[in-house]
Amino acid sequence: MTRFFAEAQNIHGDSIHLSAEDSKHIRTLRLRPDEQFVVCDGNGTDYICRLGERDDGTVAEIKEKRKSVGEPTVIAKVYIAYQKGDRLDFAVQKSVELGVHEIILFESDRCIAVPNDIPKKIARLQRISYETAKLCNRGIIPTVSASGAFTAVVDEAVNGSDLTLFFYEAEDQLHIKDVLEKHFSSSCCTGNNAVKSVSIITGPEGGFEPHEVDTARARNIPIVSLGPRILRSETAPPVALTTIMYQSGNL
Amino acid sequence: MTRFFAEAQNIHGDSIHLSAEDSKHIRTLRLRPDEQFVVCDGNGTDYICRLGERDDGTVAEIKEKRKSVGEPTVIAKVYIAYQKGDRLDFAVQKSVELGVHEIILFESDRCIAVPNDIPKKIARLQRISYETAKLCNRGIIPTVSASGAFTAVVDEAVNGSDLTLFFYEAEDQLHIKDVLEKHFSSSCCTGNNAVKSVSIITGPEGGFEPHEVDTARARNIPIVSLGPRILRSETAPPVALTTIMYQSGNL
Repeated sequence: MTRFFAEAQNIHGDSIHLSAEDSKHIRTLRLRPDEQFVVCDGNGTDYICRLGERDDGTVAEIKEKRKSVGEPTVIAKVYIAYQKGDRLDFAVQKSVELGVHEIILFESDRCIAVPNDIPKKIARLQRISYETAKLCNRGIIPTVSASGAFTAVVDEAVNGSDLTLFFYEAEDQLHIKDVLEKHFSSSCCTGNNAVKSVSIITGPEGGFEPHEVDTARARNIPIVSLGPRILRSETAPPVALTTIMYQSGNL
Repeated sequence: MTRFFAEAQNIHGDSIHLSAEDSKHIRTLRLRPDEQFVVCDGNGTDYICRLGERDDGTVAEIKEKRKSVGEPTVIAKVYIAYQKGDRLDFAVQKSVELGVHEIILFESDRCIAVPNDIPKKIARLQRISYETAKLCNRGIIPTVSASGAFTAVVDEAVNGSDLTLFFYEAEDQLHIKDVLEKHFSSSCCTGNNAVKSVSIITGPEGGFEPHEVDTARARNIPIVSLGPRILRSETAPPVALTTIMYQSGNL
């Protein structure tokens, strides 16, 4: 079913007022009168609707209310270092497909492409998050924002989640599976499922500087490998998210 | 270390003759005389080399021979339905990063973009595989090829591997984790690790037709979900590969 998002103030009793953009889109779909679509409140609730017309524009008539199925039980925040060209577009799109809750961009020492106009970049990436969330069944629109200095990012990650993971391509001892199996129960083992939120930190094209790794280590953040193949900088976030969603039973 | 591939016939005793393209590339790197680089035979062996000059061109002087670390213990073949634009470029690049062994393209009922010139498309994707393999530490260059009709693909997949998985977005009962945990041992459980090769089959933008799902089911191929979020067609292959590499201890 085609999916739209609506703000809470546009949901009134048994109908939802659609935005001008969505009204235009829905007309191009040429829905049959009995055809259903979904309007999500962006807060984990889906409204199954049919099309109605009122004097003040196109409305969605609510037929049924359901919990969105696309939201994972684990809250995943991804801290991604600025990267060149369309790499960030990719990282954001794939992270939203894989159930990320929030994306935070930051500058690290080896970043070669910090945008001149950060608010413009954020707006573009937020739009990608919105478009992707519509297509992939999400119950929220993951937010994209920019953070401050690297040390602030590390502190924010640790303070804002139950588990923080720092991915470093030169690490070859601590594997992601070892860490996640310890924190999420497997279907055949008794484990500790107290982890409700995970933050992951991934670097730019050239990777992290050793002193940045030391900063993370000093805060007791596990420094983790994603395997012996060197992943491109934009590939690491969705791969890390896939392993978290897999191990926590959200895939 | 910078990585090159060389054909077996160019590896002679203690030196390797580099191709014209690689010789040109290596000169642009301005390596110091003592700086090392890797030449891989594309068959799982890395040669650690230094630069040398001979009358017949640039040669790599072999200093050490090692097993490539980038090859997983499980042989993964990915059957990908033709897709629009750069989606296949993406699927190939990410699959190579994630350790795929072989990529086979095929046509399914809902494919909206079968290339007019398939050999040209394959050549382009093979080049992407080669470039990615160099950058991500692979010990082989995964091959890209085209297969025949859908039924032939399904038979080929089943006959050519220990386990075949068919990914279907409308499936909501059988989850990838349930299937993989049954076939690969977990670090804390005794499992069956007899699976040495896995084939995965993923569909085009519009998904598979129900009769294609039935064809796979009739051959006892598990029809598997990749979770409640709808993944884009180009995202499914790398996500499926990530779960296989994770569960089999190759990440």
